[in-house]
Formats: sequence, structure tokens, C-alpha cells
Amino acid sequence: MQQAIAVLDSGVGGLTVVKEVMRQLPQEKILYFGDTARTPYGSRPAEEVLAFTSEIVDYLIQYQPKMIVIACNTATAVALEEIRRRVNLPIVGVINPGARAAIGRTKSGVVGVIGTDGTIKSGAYEHALKRLSPKVEVISRACPSFVPLVEAGNFNSSETFRTVSEALLPLRRSDMDCLILGCTHYPFLCHPISEVMGQDVVLINSAEETAREISTILHEKSELAGRGEVPIHQFFCSAEPRKFQEIAQIWLGEQIWLMPVVWQVYQLRA
Amino acid sequence: MQQAIAVLDSGVGGLTVVKEVMRQLPQEKILYFGDTARTPYGSRPAEEVLAFTSEIVDYLIQYQPKMIVIACNTATAVALEEIRRRVNLPIVGVINPGARAAIGRTKSGVVGVIGTDGTIKSGAYEHALKRLSPKVEVISRACPSFVPLVEAGNFNSSETFRTVSEALLPLRRSDMDCLILGCTHYPFLCHPISEVMGQDVVLINSAEETAREISTILHEKSELAGRGEVPIHQFFCSAEPRKFQEIAQIWLGEQIWLMPVVWQVYQLRA
Repeated sequence: MQQAIAVLDSGVGGLTVVKEVMRQLPQEKILYFGDTARTPYGSRPAEEVLAFTSEIVDYLIQYQPKMIVIACNTATAVALEEIRRRVNLPIVGVINPGARAAIGRTKSGVVGVIGTDGTIKSGAYEHALKRLSPKVEVISRACPSFVPLVEAGNFNSSETFRTVSEALLPLRRSDMDCLILGCTHYPFLCHPISEVMGQDVVLINSAEETAREISTILHEKSELAGRGEVPIHQFFCSAEPRKFQEIAQIWLGEQIWLMPVVWQVYQLRA
Repeated sequence: MQQAIAVLDSGVGGLTVVKEVMRQLPQEKILYFGDTARTPYGSRPAEEVLAFTSEIVDYLIQYQPKMIVIACNTATAVALEEIRRRVNLPIVGVINPGARAAIGRTKSGVVGVIGTDGTIKSGAYEHALKRLSPKVEVISRACPSFVPLVEAGNFNSSETFRTVSEALLPLRRSDMDCLILGCTHYPFLCHPISEVMGQDVVLINSAEETAREISTILHEKSELAGRGEVPIHQFFCSAEPRKFQEIAQIWLGEQIWLMPVVWQVYQLRA
């Protein structure tokens, strides 16, 4: 039986990471948990986010995964280090991969970061960037208006362009050459974001970069799935699954139609 | 005393990896060994390359590095797995990082690879790419004329453009969207290569991608150098060091002038 990569998120956002793992590592089995009953995490106190994340990790560990991916910026900022201390498995978050990719790409040393209020306030990207390269200059901005646009499937309308434009114009600076999309929902808005920022600014997609680091770490541990394995993915959510299933099928697109999938609801303890 | 990242190469080519590690991880101490007395490895029998690589690894291990990087495509293709089995340290080669980056970037699933005769004949990139994603299509070509151009410092002359053009025109295909520069010397030719391949083809710089994976693996192991550490790098070569030092100072550019460096010659056993 193939060991899975367990991916957890506060809701549907982490599916962008799942999509990239399916694309970059098509032989890997994925176990996904979306905490749709308690989404979003962004406005909750840190202790609560840590408690919820720990609870889901404990649930997923029963399936003996080979790795746990915290595919939520808020949960990564709050819980990654604590979970790493407590669980004897590779634990990957979404913040360090994006930071590392930006350090690799920037020539000017000026990096932009956008995310939810909680993520930007935590300073987690700035910390991760400066931890790697102390001289990098970081310019951050919270964009709370973006997630509702994505969840409504409103990726390219003129309203979306206007909202994105208003949010990002104050961030523009001629020497910024990288912008980290520090929220799992934002890759859906890459067209309007790129339009506003200009073609000289490289957009760093945390989902893509996280999938890449998952691949690196599994390879280093000689734990990549074997050649020719056909994975059976499993998806859990904590609320009524119809809406979740609908979004997952749209977001994952053809990948989900080609693969065996199981949908389940996990009843959270009261 | 800070533990170093040990980097070894058949000669000067691995300095492109060193340059990227210095840029992406400016706090890390580097120990470099260039086997300038026995360069190039490309035309040597596999057993000999394995023996040379093992000898250098044994030498470097005396310095108790935290990781060993085989920054030479030929040595990676021949010796990586054997060294990984034998040495209880993270061992990073230059082939898998390039392959992983290409899988992350390609949308069409058609990836080009250029390298020395030895690297292309070994099929190591094709193996690494298909190991990750069995459906990827790989188009390879050996470019033996490129290394002499780089070692002569001839990066942008009309002769260089002509040579690059002749070598790469047969490789062009409308659906290829990524080209792996599968030799540590090739990033110096990125301008002429990009001119010939067209701007829609992303060039994958193995040196940049290897530095990125070094960062990922050290982070996963909680072994990144501490904040504010000023590393003292050490360079060894196996032949008379003047020419080596000259090339290193040109290739590493300002990075080397800003940092304390020790140059040493290692006497090979007869």
C-alpha cells in the first residue's frame, strides 16, 4: 500500500497545492483534509489555529502518511514549528518554499509579498526571507478583498481587475522584480495581478514552489513513489461535502476526472 | 565553528553552483574542491570517475561538512547513488534539481536537455525526468563545442553565436517550452542560447536550481547557518592554483571580493 502525502488546509485553498503535486508528482497518493466547517482561519486567535491544525494532523497521522503538508498560510505561520517539534515526519509549509523561490529569482533584492491580513501581520514571509538572505528588502501588503473573488469563481471580470488594481498600485516600485502570492487562493488571479504589476515582475506561486519542495524532500529521503504507481487519492472535509466537491472538481480540472477519488466527511469532535 | 557545505567538481565548472549558493545562502560557509589536475572527467571511464569522486569525498569529509554537493554532471551521473549509499550525509547532485525545475515549469510536457557527450550518453536527465513524471517527452543533444568557449571566456562573440546556433537549431521544436542547461559551464552562454531558442523557451540553470535544493534540504534538517554568520570560504584545487584562482575570481565576481577566502592546493596521491 502506497504511503500518502497528507495535505491539510482550512478549507479549499490548499487544493492549489494538491493540483501542483498531481502535476509535478503524478505517481504520488494524496490525502487531503479541508476544514470547511471552521474556515476561514485568518481571523481566529493563534492558539485556536494551532489547536485546529494539531487536531487535523493527529487525524491524518492515523493513515500513516510519509509527509504532512500544511497548505494554508495562516496555519503555517502559527503552527509549523510546533508541529515539526511534535511529529516525527517531514512537515512542509507554504511560506518557506515561496520565500526560497523569491530569493532564487530576485536580481534587485527587492521582493513584494501579498497575503491575507493574518499572514501579512504575522510577518512570517519577511522572517523567512531575511532568515535566508538578511539583506533582502521586503514590501508587504494585505489584500483581504482577493479571497472572496476567487471563491466566487470571479477570476477575470472587470470588477476583479478594478479590485486588484486598487490593491496593488500602492505596492508597485520600479526596483521590485518578484511578488510572492502569499495565499493559496491568489494563483487564480495571476492574470489581473500580472497585468497590474507589469511583465518585469515575476509572480511566485507558492503552490507550485511547495510542490517542488515536496519533491526535493521526498527524493532526498528516497521516498518518492515508485514508477508506474497509480494513486488513489482521498479527500476529507469537515462540513457537508457537496460544495467542497464542486469546487474541487472545478479547481483540479481534468486531473480529478482521470483519477480515482474518495470523498468523505470527517465529523469533528464537538 | 560553522559546518560547511562541501562542493566538488572536476575543475572550475562547479563554481557556477558556488556562485548561486553564495547568492541564495550568503551565510553558508563553502568548501570547494576542483580536481584541476585530472579535468575533464567527461571522457574518462565510469569506474575512474567514481574512484576520483570517492577520493575527493573522503578528503572533504575530514572537514566534517554538513552536506556534500557533487557539482559536476558527469560525476553526478556516475557516482551520486554510490556515494549516497556509502556516506551518511545529505548528498546533492546537479541532475535532479534541474530535472525537477523543468517538470515544475513545463506546460507542454516537452523538455529539452543539452550537456556534454558523457552526460547525454548516460541518459541521466531523461531517467530523472521520467522518474518524476513518466509522460514527459525528453529531447537531448550533446554540445561538446560549448565548454571550450566558456573556458576561453568567449561568452558573446559572433563565433559563439554561430557555434551555439549550429548546435541548437536541430533541437528546436515548437512545443518544447523548457531547456535544461545540463552542464555547469552553460549558464555563461545563456544569452546566445536564449537568442537561438526563442523567448518562449525557459532556460533551466542547474546551478541556480541546485542551490535552491541545497537550501530546501538544509532547512528541512534545521541545519541552515545562523543569522548574521560571516562565512570564511575555502577553495582547494589539485593542480597549480594560479589559473584556478584567476577563473574563480572572474566567475564569482564581486561575491568573492566581499568575502574572506582561503586558497589551497591539495596534493593528490600519485
